[in-house]
Formats: sequence, structure tokens, C-alpha cells
Amino acid sequence: MSADRRVYLKMTGAEQALEILLSRAAQLPVLPAETIPTTEASGRVTAAPIYAHTSAPTFPAAAMDGYAVVSALTFAASEAQPVSLCVPEEAEPLDTGDALPQGKDAVYKIEDVHEEPGSITVLAAAWPGQHVRLVGEEVTAGELLITSGEWIGPQHLGLLLAAQVWSVPVRRKPVVTLIPTGTECVPAGEEPGDAQFVEYNGPMLAAALDEWGAEPQLLAPVPDDRETLTKAILQATDNSDLVAVIAGSSAGREDFVPHVISELGELLVHGVRMMPGKPLALGWVADTPVIGLPGYCVAAWIALDDYARPLLCHLLGVAVPERPRVQARVQRKLPSSAGMREVIRVALCDSGDDEKPIAVPLPRGSGSITSLAMAHGLLPVDEASEGLDTGTEVDVELLVPLEEIERSIVAIGSHDLALAVLAEQLAQARPPVKLVSLSTGSAEGLAALGRGEGLMAGTHLLDPATQQYNIAYIQRWLPKLPLILVNLTFREVGLLVSPGNPKAISDVGDLAREDVTLINRQPGSGTRVLLDFLLQQRSIQPQAVRGYEREAYTHTMVAEAIRQGSADTGLGILAAASAFGLDFVPVTEERYDLAIPKVFLDLDKVAAVLQVLRDPGFQSEVTHLGGYSVRSTGEVVYEQ
Amino acid sequence: MSADRRVYLKMTGAEQALEILLSRAAQLPVLPAETIPTTEASGRVTAAPIYAHTSAPTFPAAAMDGYAVVSALTFAASEAQPVSLCVPEEAEPLDTGDALPQGKDAVYKIEDVHEEPGSITVLAAAWPGQHVRLVGEEVTAGELLITSGEWIGPQHLGLLLAAQVWSVPVRRKPVVTLIPTGTECVPAGEEPGDAQFVEYNGPMLAAALDEWGAEPQLLAPVPDDRETLTKAILQATDNSDLVAVIAGSSAGREDFVPHVISELGELLVHGVRMMPGKPLALGWVADTPVIGLPGYCVAAWIALDDYARPLLCHLLGVAVPERPRVQARVQRKLPSSAGMREVIRVALCDSGDDEKPIAVPLPRGSGSITSLAMAHGLLPVDEASEGLDTGTEVDVELLVPLEEIERSIVAIGSHDLALAVLAEQLAQARPPVKLVSLSTGSAEGLAALGRGEGLMAGTHLLDPATQQYNIAYIQRWLPKLPLILVNLTFREVGLLVSPGNPKAISDVGDLAREDVTLINRQPGSGTRVLLDFLLQQRSIQPQAVRGYEREAYTHTMVAEAIRQGSADTGLGILAAASAFGLDFVPVTEERYDLAIPKVFLDLDKVAAVLQVLRDPGFQSEVTHLGGYSVRSTGEVVYEQ
Repeated sequence: MSADRRVYLKMTGAEQALEILLSRAAQLPVLPAETIPTTEASGRVTAAPIYAHTSAPTFPAAAMDGYAVVSALTFAASEAQPVSLCVPEEAEPLDTGDALPQGKDAVYKIEDVHEEPGSITVLAAAWPGQHVRLVGEEVTAGELLITSGEWIGPQHLGLLLAAQVWSVPVRRKPVVTLIPTGTECVPAGEEPGDAQFVEYNGPMLAAALDEWGAEPQLLAPVPDDRETLTKAILQATDNSDLVAVIAGSSAGREDFVPHVISELGELLVHGVRMMPGKPLALGWVADTPVIGLPGYCVAAWIALDDYARPLLCHLLGVAVPERPRVQARVQRKLPSSAGMREVIRVALCDSGDDEKPIAVPLPRGSGSITSLAMAHGLLPVDEASEGLDTGTEVDVELLVPLEEIERSIVAIGSHDLALAVLAEQLAQARPPVKLVSLSTGSAEGLAALGRGEGLMAGTHLLDPATQQYNIAYIQRWLPKLPLILVNLTFREVGLLVSPGNPKAISDVGDLAREDVTLINRQPGSGTRVLLDFLLQQRSIQPQAVRGYEREAYTHTMVAEAIRQGSADTGLGILAAASAFGLDFVPVTEERYDLAIPKVFLDLDKVAAVLQVLRDPGFQSEVTHLGGYSVRSTGEVVYEQ
Repeated sequence: MSADRRVYLKMTGAEQALEILLSRAAQLPVLPAETIPTTEASGRVTAAPIYAHTSAPTFPAAAMDGYAVVSALTFAASEAQPVSLCVPEEAEPLDTGDALPQGKDAVYKIEDVHEEPGSITVLAAAWPGQHVRLVGEEVTAGELLITSGEWIGPQHLGLLLAAQVWSVPVRRKPVVTLIPTGTECVPAGEEPGDAQFVEYNGPMLAAALDEWGAEPQLLAPVPDDRETLTKAILQATDNSDLVAVIAGSSAGREDFVPHVISELGELLVHGVRMMPGKPLALGWVADTPVIGLPGYCVAAWIALDDYARPLLCHLLGVAVPERPRVQARVQRKLPSSAGMREVIRVALCDSGDDEKPIAVPLPRGSGSITSLAMAHGLLPVDEASEGLDTGTEVDVELLVPLEEIERSIVAIGSHDLALAVLAEQLAQARPPVKLVSLSTGSAEGLAALGRGEGLMAGTHLLDPATQQYNIAYIQRWLPKLPLILVNLTFREVGLLVSPGNPKAISDVGDLAREDVTLINRQPGSGTRVLLDFLLQQRSIQPQAVRGYEREAYTHTMVAEAIRQGSADTGLGILAAASAFGLDFVPVTEERYDLAIPKVFLDLDKVAAVLQVLRDPGFQSEVTHLGGYSVRSTGEVVYEQ
């Protein structure tokens, strides 16, 4: 393994890379037209201007239910001098949409006439054309209905069919072949073996392409073998408008994509100054654009969105549809390197001052599929920016409809399994409430509340001095924020150990043993605070604990590490032990509360949380998880 | 025909009607669940909470390309004291995503090591877990991935598959049977005979339902026959979650829908205080909701949107997705009856002061499919409102993506066939520009510019005093608005007559003849101004002209009226005569200009208009229409 076998990334600016791609694409013709029945054209793009075949209405028709008359016979009619008309010779009954009978030129509404057997009486003159839909009033033959290069929606369908346009020329859908790569990959749906993983980028990107009006073709994963990859790309370029290779575009030993592109055609860009998305390759093989996408899911999705979507729009001859935006505010410093485009996934959270919502950044890792799945929107930080300051107003591109944001509760703080029960119960509430839960640990949750991020924070911070939970920290960190502290649960905390407790761990004191390896929690989490307190009580120095510096972010990650055998024990909750089939050595019971700023108590969705907490169904389900006591659940344990 | 055979509408408030519908629907269970492959689940709604089957990653993996090491061996490493590690025993090369080899617990990035044959040297200690993706770092087994009642998007697909969830329980799609009614209807695709019309509501509504996640079933039109309709509704309720009958819900003689509903089941609402959408029927037959939609297309679409969509969301167990909104301003008084909900279709137009866009109301008729197809958004005026005043800020619900609004030019004013050529050329410009053209006549176009509605106005108003076009009017009506007047064309105006000119019409003077019937244009249109001038020149009183009071809104409507034989002649342009195969008696040549406020001249899309006007390709296409001179096209003929 020597360095020269690697092709290092030659970084290009994000905007410049797009320009390079699109100016190369400008030499490609737009996709050919195909003619399809109008009734099937919704979601397609017009390939030519479309004109009305006929007028609509095609005949003069009644615009109201009533009587068709000859207006000239009514000119003298008034309240004082009613005019009587014979039915049907002078006044013919008809309904909305009926053709105006020959010779008649006006319609009285049914409620404007007095009906008698064989005649009607009217009290006002009708003007010629009264309540009559003229021929061509809606659409006139030959009129331009829609230009080329427009997306056809349901409403256009109505317009086209009204003008008797039965078929329309539309752009062929762009065919995008997705080639996942990686010897260790198995396609989604197959159980992966040891050291294999599921190729889930392909189906995700295919679904996105489908939404964007393309025709995705997802191939089975191709092993990291230069020849196989070469063959796959060549074959794909043959029958695709765009080829997107997933993974293998970086500078690893088996990242063949850039090599293969430059061997078969032209490598335009290798490496883009964007995060996520850096290891991106843009090229051209046999007149077909080939994009080498990063392997990390978020990076792959954003690269597809940033580069493939504009390219597809070019091929379709349409402008790139912009996502709806909302203005929001960031409440923390978000550093970003100048020259680097960054796309931050955010959740949007009500602001206490009823102003613009707060954009709460989700984990920035390029592999964090959760951050993409839970994001309300994208916050792009462009190349020129060196980051965002607290209070900056930003435009967030929405990934979900507005109502989803409005019914969301952003909760930042400690992880607890009861939150999942709460989330599902809230989802079943009417109207449904969506709990967007970020596991950051108790201390960070309270800090977030202080910044105005989040409607509530889960916290279980033990104050060693008072032996009380949460209150001392709130009084210290958030003295001026009016809030209530509502109990979620009391829960048993203990040492999670392998089934049968093979190392015979019986107390926190055993963490000092040479044969015991810990998996710890991150600083600021309530469990870390508790562990440090317990170690201090026993006069054990952190250095004396093997694995003290290895940190997991949730109880379940701790459990998973023990199940996998990469640690012997970790402090966590009974419910996590049960969920992973582990044994549990009880240590203490702790109180887990939700801190909710008072300013949010008026919101219906926050009221829904309190209602669920106090619901016996919720409480019984939580109890069922094991290790929980709901004796104070839903009670306000403190307010300030 | 007696009044008692009609069932008059018993009007219900719009909100109340929805409440009645939804509270009845609350008794219905949500749709049953079905389990489908996760890869096909995008666009569906979860029917249960979904938990991770496995953790992701499932094994500790390299987060970077580089070398896996035992961190303990590197603790002493520093710039001063580099540490050397044997490859592969102590330092194993690996790439991003590769499983961490047994015993190794940290990764050095390739760029942080110095590679030598058989060894690497490092200058800093690695911490345990450095550049390692922990098991469950992304998703931990058992974790709640998505609650019930959520729409699954591409990103959720990624999350679910990452956690090895291969299939998901989703709500069955609601089946909506659409029953178009009307003896005069033929299905879209068939040529209608005399007094028949195309049933285009069905395909339009079916496409909308499909977008909303339902499964539409469109039946062939059912004649206005009570028994046939009864049978159709009964059959449909048997295999549908919702039945929507199109037309026949009002109080006409053949509006059987309300009768049939109340006969078969329960008629909850008949008539709703909304515009469009008034003749709406809501009912229940055999536990299936049945909606009787108005027959006018816009009314049908809005009623479906306002009533069927919330019902479908209820059946799916989801909140009603809200459309994105933008804040806008109205620049005219929009009266609306208190107690009446109104949904106004609007185009959104740049405002000169760079503030919120202006919402320009489109024709309010319930049959104006064009107004629905060209609308950027909907402006609901709720029941409590008595209308909107000039300057009111409003929320507009968007029907199109933002970029379509940004690239739109709203043009209000006179109708001309050259505008269609301009629209298509602008659509082909890069970036494409969308011309949203409202034919209101010249005077109304200038008035709209004065209100701040529209980026340009087409006008051809002859000033009898100066014998000049447009300038005198602008100086009189818009003295303070800085604008330019750009020539679009000179065009021949004359009398359109049937082929062969059977009535031997040779001059405007012939309009006074008893055997000649005119089709006129609306007041304020340039052509009407011209006709009045020509009549005055000839000392002909309007009363002396048969048909003077019958008004069409465009040149082509005039042509269509003559082709249909409902008028003998009308003043119009040669191009309209040619398009409809009519003969043409030349009268004069007029100048047609575009008035553009100077504040918009900086916009790229306005620059694109000027560029197209000056393009020889455009000019030749316009000339080709016949009757046009492009001798001044694109020239600024006046500015102030």
C-alpha cells in the first residue's frame, strides 16, 4: 500500500463544480418528445406549445338553472309591468350547462321568475347573453394553453381536455441508472453476513429520482473490482441519460470510480468543497453524464440533489423547481469554513417570542441517515460564508409540508425509551403531534432550552450536594427562564452486563477491576454525571476504569456494545437491558423529568404531551417496558 | 315544470359543513393496514410504529480511509517522538466502511500517517474509537424509527432499510370512485356531438386524488337518470372508501344526486356557503361517504380539495398536509359576502418596492378552468371576512413551486396573438421565463399597472384627439408612473366576416344595416375604443347597431362567434380571422405596445422579453401569423 496508488481529491468549489457540469450538459440536446394520452400526462413536462383544438364551451350554454328566452321579448318588463312568456315557445326550461335552444339568447335564473302552468312571469328585462356561457368563453380554439417546458398538473389536464386535446407531446422521462458499489454490500432485503452491510442508498435515491420525474433503474451492487465496474458503467451509459455510481468515488484503495470515468471518458471534477458530499466525481462517458456519488447516505442524497437534479431538469428543459422556504433564526454559532458549501439538516421549532421559528441543527455527520429522515428542512451555508452567528436569520428549504412543522415538538435532551412510547401516543392523538426527539444528553438539552431551541428537554441530572435531580442545575443554568418540570418517570439505573453476568459484576466498584471494560456515556449526559458521582463516592479515579473514555450516546448504544462483546458493562436503564437480552445489576433509581418553558404551555401540542403523560394507557405501556415507575408521571415537580 | 320538483339548497356554512362531514367520518375506522416491501413504501402512510430490526452499523467500521490500529500502542506518539507501527500486524490498511479488524480500536486517516514499506509512522496518539463508527451509532436495534400515521419519504426508506426493516405496514390507499353525471357528457377522448360536452372534470380530479395518495377509479359518465344514478352510487359505495359524484348536486330539474343520497342513506349537507363550490352535497350511503360535487370545474376541484382531501387524510390517519404559503399583498378591493367562504385563484407578481409580492386575482367564475390552470396559488377569504381592502396582507397557498413564481411575468391587458408567440419564446429562453397573460382589455391593463399589478400591460388605445396610440391615456391615467412603452407590433384591424362575406360588409358603416348583427368587445378594450371612434366618425349611434351590447373578451372569441353564425361581423385582427378561416375586411392599422414600469427593467426576466422582441426569429414568426408589421417591434416608442 503506497500513497501513489491513491488518486487524491482535487477539490473544486461547489458552485464551480455545478457550472462545469451544466456547461458540459448544455451541449446535450434535451430529451426527445413522446406523445402520450392527455389523461396520463400529469407529472410530465410539455415538449411543445399546446394549442386548443376546439373552443370551450363549444356551444352557447345556460350558466344557470332556469329558462332560456328571447331577450327582445322582455325589454319592457319591470316590477310595475311584468311580462308573461309562454312555456316552452317563448321560455324554455333548462339547466346549467344545457345548450341554449336555437333563437334564444338569454337565461333567467329559476329564482328570478314566477312559474305558472304554461307560462312564466318576469319582472325585469333580460339582456342578450344574460347567464349564457358564450362559445369560447373559457377557451378559444387555437389559443395557447401551455408552452413547452412546463410541468403538467391535474389542473392543466382539465384545461387540455376541455379544449379537446386528447394527446400531448411530453419529454421522455430521463432514465437514471444507479450502480451501487462495494464488495461488502448486499442489496436491501437480503440479510447481510459478517462485515457486510445493506446497500440502502440505492432504494432511497431511486425513490427521490422517481419524485423528481425521472425513471430510476437500480442495479444490484457491483463489487469493488475495476473491471466489473468498468463494464457496468459502460453498459449503463448505453441505455441511460445519467449514470450515478454510489460509493467508490473518494480516494480509498478501492475507489475506482474516478479512475474508470477518466479512462472511459472525461473526469470533470473529483472532489467538491461541500459538506457533506466532498468525495464527489463528475464526468462524462460516451456522451452520458456519470456522477460518482459519495458512499455516505446523507452525502449521497445531497450530492444527488445538488448535482443530478439540476442536470435532469436541464435534460427535461425545465427550470430547477425550488423547494418552499421558511425564514428561521439560528440560536447558536454554526462555524463553517469559508470556501466550503455546507448543507445542514435542521428541525424547525416554535420560538417563544412568536417570531420566526428556530432552526435547530441536527447531527452534521455525512452518514447520519437519521438526521436526514427527521429533518424538517435544509439550511445551506454557502461557500462565501464563514458560518452563522447566533441570531442570524436564515432561509430554510422545506423537506416536509408546513403542517408537519406546525404539529412538531422538538425535544432535545436525554435519551429514554419512554420517549418512544410518548412519540407513538402523540402520533395517535387527534390532531396528531409529532415528537422530534434529539438525544444529546441532559446538560445539552437544558442548554438548548436556554438558547430557545426545543419546546422541551428530557433531563435526569443528579446534584451530588442536594441528592436531588434537575432542579439545582436549572437554577444554576437557567435561572431566568420561566419553566415547569414535569416528571416523565422514575427509572431503575444499573450496570448492564452480558447474559449470566459472566464477569460477576455486582457494583460500580467492580469498574476498577483490570478484567472489566466499561462503555461510558458522553459528558453532560445524566448517566455520565451519575457514574462520575458513583465513582467519586467509591474513590475510584476515572483513569482506573478501563474504557472510561469510550463514549456512547444512548442507553441502547451502551447495550449494543455489551451485546457485541466490545465492552463488559455500562451504566444504563433496565429497559435497554431487557430490549437487548442483557442482565442488569441494579444500582439506583433516578428521576427523569421534562423541562418545558412556560411560554409554550399555551400550545395545544404541548397540552397534548401533558395529557398523554397523565393517560393510564401511556403509563401502563411505559411500566410494561420494565424498570419504570410512573408514580409521579405527569406531575409538575418544580416550577420557576 | 313546477317549482316543487326542485330541491332547493339549504345553505350550510363552509366550516360547519366540514365539521359535519368530519364528525360523521370520526365514526369510521381508519383504513386497514397492508404490509408492503419497504422499497415500495415511498408516498405511503405508516399503519404502526416501526422499530429498528438491527443496529446500523452492525459492526464497528472505519469512518475514514486509513489504518486501523490498537490505540494503546500510540499513546506515546508526538511530533517529537513519532511512533512506528508494523503493517499489517499493528496497523492494518482499510477504507471507509470496512469492518474494524478484531483487536483494533482506532483509525488514523491516511493523510495523518507517514507510509513506509512495511510500516507507518504517526505523530500523535489515537484515542480509542478515533474515526470508528460504533455499532448502533446511526440506529440502534429496537429504536423507534417512525411512528404510525407518517408519510414515508425517500429518506425514511433509507432509514428503514439501514435498520433492516424489509417490509412495513402501511394504510391501504383509499379508493375513491368518481362518477361523472350528465346525459350530454362524453368521456374525455371521444369527440362530442352537437350540444354534448367533454367530461374533463373526472380525469382532472382523478389526477389530483392520485397526487394526494388515493386510488381513483373514474367511471364513464352516467346519464341524468335517477335509477341509473342510484344503481351507480350503490355499486360504488360497495367497493369504495369515498364516492364523489360529479355534477347533478344542485337544484336543477335533473340534479338527482341529493335526492338519491337521502333516499339511499343520509344527506348531511346540501349547499355550502362558499364560492366557488356552492352546490355541494355531503352524505353517507351504507357507511361510505358520498360527496356530490358541483359540475363547474373550478368548483368541483375546490370542493374536492376542501372536503374530500381532509376526509381522505382522516381515513389515512394523518393530518391534512398544508400547502406552502407565501405572504402577499392585494392591490384592489376584493368584496366578499360575510358568511361566504371564497377561494380566489391568484397569480403572484413582483412588487415594485421589492416587498411582498402582489396577489393578482384571476377570473372568479366557477367554470374558469383557465384561472385554475394558470393560478400560482389560492387566496382563501374566510366566512368571517367581508372582503379584502387594497393593501391587505394575505397568505397565499401555493399551487406551484417557488421558482415558477420567480420566473413568471404577470402581464395584464389587451389580447393579441403575438403574445402567445412571445410566451413560447420566453419558455424556451434559458433560464425559462413564464408569461402569465390575463386578457382584460387595454384600459384595465393600464389600471392594473397603476395598482402595482402586473409587470407589463399590452395596450392599443387610440386617442381620437391626437390620432395617437396609448401615450395620451398613459399621461392621463398614469402620469406619475415611470414607464417605457415598447412596441410589440403594428397590426391590421378590420371586420371579421364569414367566408365569402355573404352579407357583403365593406365598411364599419354597414354595422347600421338591419340585416347585420355585430359581436362587440368589452368596454375598455382598445378594439371597443376604436369601434366607438369609427362609429362616431360615421355618426352612427350605438343603439343603431344590432348586437352592440353583446360582448366578447378576445379577438378569437369574436371570430368564434362569427364562425358559429351567432353574429355576422365584429372588429378584430387579421390573425384571428385567419385562425378561424374567416374573411377579413381591412379597416385600419393600429399600434400595439407593451407598457413596462421602469422599476421592473432591472429584472432579468423583463430583459428577456426585450431580447425576444428584438429577435428576428420572434419577429418572423409573428409576421407569419398574418396582418402584423414588426417594423418597430422592440423599439421604445415613449418613456416617462
